[in-house]
Amino acid sequence: MKDSVFTSTNRIEAFSDGIIAIIITVMVFDLKLSESSTTDQMYAGFIQLLPKFASYVISFLMLAIMWVNHHQLFHQIKHADRKLLWLSIHLLFWMSFIPFSTHFVGMHPDKSLTVSTYSLNFLMCVVSFSMLRAYIIRNDFLHEQIDRKMTLKIRKKNYLAISMYGLAAICSLLTVTISYVFILIVPLMYIIPERIVYKENAS
Amino acid sequence: MKDSVFTSTNRIEAFSDGIIAIIITVMVFDLKLSESSTTDQMYAGFIQLLPKFASYVISFLMLAIMWVNHHQLFHQIKHADRKLLWLSIHLLFWMSFIPFSTHFVGMHPDKSLTVSTYSLNFLMCVVSFSMLRAYIIRNDFLHEQIDRKMTLKIRKKNYLAISMYGLAAICSLLTVTISYVFILIVPLMYIIPERIVYKENAS
Amino acid sequence: MKDSVFTSTNRIEAFSDGIIAIIITVMVFDLKLSESSTTDQMYAGFIQLLPKFASYVISFLMLAIMWVNHHQLFHQIKHADRKLLWLSIHLLFWMSFIPFSTHFVGMHPDKSLTVSTYSLNFLMCVVSFSMLRAYIIRNDFLHEQIDRKMTLKIRKKNYLAISMYGLAAICSLLTVTISYVFILIVPLMYIIPERIVYKENAS
Amino acid sequence: MKDSVFTSTNRIEAFSDGIIAIIITVMVFDLKLSESSTTDQMYAGFIQLLPKFASYVISFLMLAIMWVNHHQLFHQIKHADRKLLWLSIHLLFWMSFIPFSTHFVGMHPDKSLTVSTYSLNFLMCVVSFSMLRAYIIRNDFLHEQIDRKMTLKIRKKNYLAISMYGLAAICSLLTVTISYVFILIVPLMYIIPERIVYKENAS
Repeated sequence: MKDSVFTSTNRIEAFSDGIIAIIITVMVFDLKLSESSTTDQMYAGFIQLLPKFASYVISFLMLAIMWVNHHQLFHQIKHADRKLLWLSIHLLFWMSFIPFSTHFVGMHPDKSLTVSTYSLNFLMCVVSFSMLRAYIIRNDFLHEQIDRKMTLKIRKKNYLAISMYGLAAICSLLTVTISYVFILIVPLMYIIPERIVYKENAS
Repeated sequence: MKDSVFTSTNRIEAFSDGIIAIIITVMVFDLKLSESSTTDQMYAGFIQLLPKFASYVISFLMLAIMWVNHHQLFHQIKHADRKLLWLSIHLLFWMSFIPFSTHFVGMHPDKSLTVSTYSLNFLMCVVSFSMLRAYIIRNDFLHEQIDRKMTLKIRKKNYLAISMYGLAAICSLLTVTISYVFILIVPLMYIIPERIVYKENAS
Repeated sequence: MKDSVFTSTNRIEAFSDGIIAIIITVMVFDLKLSESSTTDQMYAGFIQLLPKFASYVISFLMLAIMWVNHHQLFHQIKHADRKLLWLSIHLLFWMSFIPFSTHFVGMHPDKSLTVSTYSLNFLMCVVSFSMLRAYIIRNDFLHEQIDRKMTLKIRKKNYLAISMYGLAAICSLLTVTISYVFILIVPLMYIIPERIVYKENAS
Repeated sequence: MKDSVFTSTNRIEAFSDGIIAIIITVMVFDLKLSESSTTDQMYAGFIQLLPKFASYVISFLMLAIMWVNHHQLFHQIKHADRKLLWLSIHLLFWMSFIPFSTHFVGMHPDKSLTVSTYSLNFLMCVVSFSMLRAYIIRNDFLHEQIDRKMTLKIRKKNYLAISMYGLAAICSLLTVTISYVFILIVPLMYIIPERIVYKENAS
C-alpha cells in the first residue's frame, strides 16, 4: 500500500524548521553581559563579549546555510520513509549542539579544546547531512526531472567541508589561528547553494 | 453536524511539534560551562559536564522516539475530539518536565532522588501516551484499513516500558547503576516504531 | 476587493501557537536547582522548588485552557482583519508575561506583591481575550450557523473569571491564602470549554 | 522551468514566524528578579526591573509591527527566489539581536553605549527590511493588482524611521533622554500598517 505514514515530508520539514529556529535564537540568549555597576565595568563586559559575537555570527551563517540547503533538498523529495526520518533526527541531534559549542568557543576563543569541539560539531553536522543526502539519492527519492550530476558536485563540496573542519580540529592542537581560517572557508564555499539543474529532456 | 471544532488534528500536531522542538532545544541550553579563568578550570568544567551530556543524549533519543510515534499515531487518526485534545495536552505536560529531570539527573547522576525523578518522569510520559492511544483505539478514531493487531503489540511494549521505568525508580533506592540499565533498555526497545500493518482485505 | 491581506487566520493561529508553546516551555526552564555539593543541600533545594512546581502547574493549566479556547474561537471565524490581528497581539502580550509572574510567585509564594502580580497578569489575559471575542462577535466574523447564545454564556464566565482574579489581587493585600482559592477556581471553571451550539435551522 | 525550489514562500514565512515568536518570548525570560531573602530586597529588585519592563514593551511593539508588515508583504508576493531567501535571513539576523540589545539597555538605561546599541540594532532591522522590500518591488514579485504608489509611501516612512534611529544613536552620545523620544516616535509611526491600495482597473 502506497499511502504509508512517512510519505509526506511536511511534518519533518516543520519540525526541523522549529528546531533550527530555536537553535538560532537560543544562541543569542548567551550574548549577555554580567551585571555591572560602573560604566568601566560595562565597557569591559562589552569588549569581553566580542569573541562571543564573532562565534555567533559564524554559527548563524552556517545554520542559515544548512537551513537553505535542507529547504532545497526536501523540496526535491518525492516522498519519505522511516529511515529518512531517523537520518533527519540524526542531523538535528548534531545541530542541537551548536549553541553549546558556540558558547564554549566564545568563552575561550584561544584554546585547542574549544576550537576543536566547535570544528568537530560542524564536521558531524556536515557528515550527518551528507548521510541524509546520500540515502535520498541512493533510494531514488528525488523527483525524476532533477539532474543527478548536481548531486555529485554537492558531494565533492561536502567532502571538502568535512576536510576543512577536520583540519581545523587537528590544527587547533598546534595553533588556533589557522583553524579559524579553515572554519571561515566553509561558509564562503556554501553561501550560494547549488542550482538545481534539470535534465535536458524534462518538460 | 460533522464539521465540528476538533475534527482536524492539524493544529494539535503543530502545537505538539512546537513544544517537543522547544523541549529538545531547551535541554541543550543547560549544557553550559561555568565561567573559568584558567585552562585547568576549563578542562575540569568540561569533564563535569559529561554526565549532563549523557543524560541529554538519552532524553533526546526518548523525545525523538515519542515524536516519531506521535507522528505515526496522528497520521492514522481520522478525526479528533475535545477529550483527545486534553489527553494530548496531558502528554505534553509530562514531556515538558523532561528538561528539568534531565538537568537534575545530570547534576547528581549518583543520587536516588534524581534517578527516580528521571525514571518517574518518563514513566508518566509513557502512561499518558498509552492513555492517548487507548482512547483513540477505544473510540474508533483510527482509519478503517489499519490492522488492530498492531495496537495490541504496541500496548504490550508500553506495559514493558512502564515496568522498566518503575523498576528503575525502585532500584534507584538501592543502587542507581541497575536503574540506568533499565532506563537504557527502553529506547532500544522503541527505536524502531511498529510498522503499520494493513488488513488483508484493504485496497 | 474581497481577497484582502488579513482574510486568512492561518498565520495568526500559527504565530499564536508558536508563542504559547514557547511560553509553556520557557516556564519549565525556571524549574532548576541551584548547584549543590552535598545530598542534604540537594534535598533542601528540591523542597524549595515545590512552590515553583505548584505555580507552574497552575500556569500550564491556564495556558492550555487559553490555547484550547483560542483554537475553538479561531475555528469559528470566517475571516479576519487588521484590528483582529492587533487584538490577538494584545492577548499574546499579556500571555508573554506569564513566565515572569509564575517565576515571581514561585519564588515568594507568601507575599502580596507576587500574588497580586500573578492575579493581575491573568486578569489582563482574560480581559484581552474577552476584547478579542467581543470584537469578533460584534463584527460578525463568526460562521453563520453558530448559535449566538453560547457567546453570552462565555461572556458571563469571563466576567466571573475577571472578578475572581480581581478578588485574588485585592485579597492578597490582607492574606494570600484566600487569593489562592480564587486563583484555583478559574481553571476549574474553564477546563471544559463551551460546546459550540449550532442553530436549529443550520444544515 | 517554472517549478523552481523557492517559488513558494510558505516555508520562509513559517521559519520567520518561528524565529520572531521565539525572539519575543526569549526577551521575557530576562525579566527576572535575582533571588532575595527579605521583603525589602524583593521590592528593591522589582523596582530595579522597571526599566527592563519598559524596554521589553518597546521591543515587543516593534517586533509585532515588523511581524504584521512581514505578514502583509509576503501575502502580496507571487513567488520567491534564492536572493529573496537570503534577504529574509539577513533581516532575521538583525532581529535576532533584539533580545540582547533590549536586555542591555534595560540594564543600563542611562548610558550612551546601551542606547546607541539599541538604536543601531533597530536601524539595521529597518534597513534590512527596506532592502527586502526594495528587492521585491524591483523584481516585480508583487501581485499585479497592487498599486505601486503605496510602496512609495512605505519607502518614505522607512527612510524616516532610519533617520529617527540614526538621530537616537547620535543623540545618545550627548543625552539619552532625547534618544528615547526618537525611539518612541517610530512605533507610533508604524502601528497602523499601510492599507494595500488596489489599482482602479483591478477586478
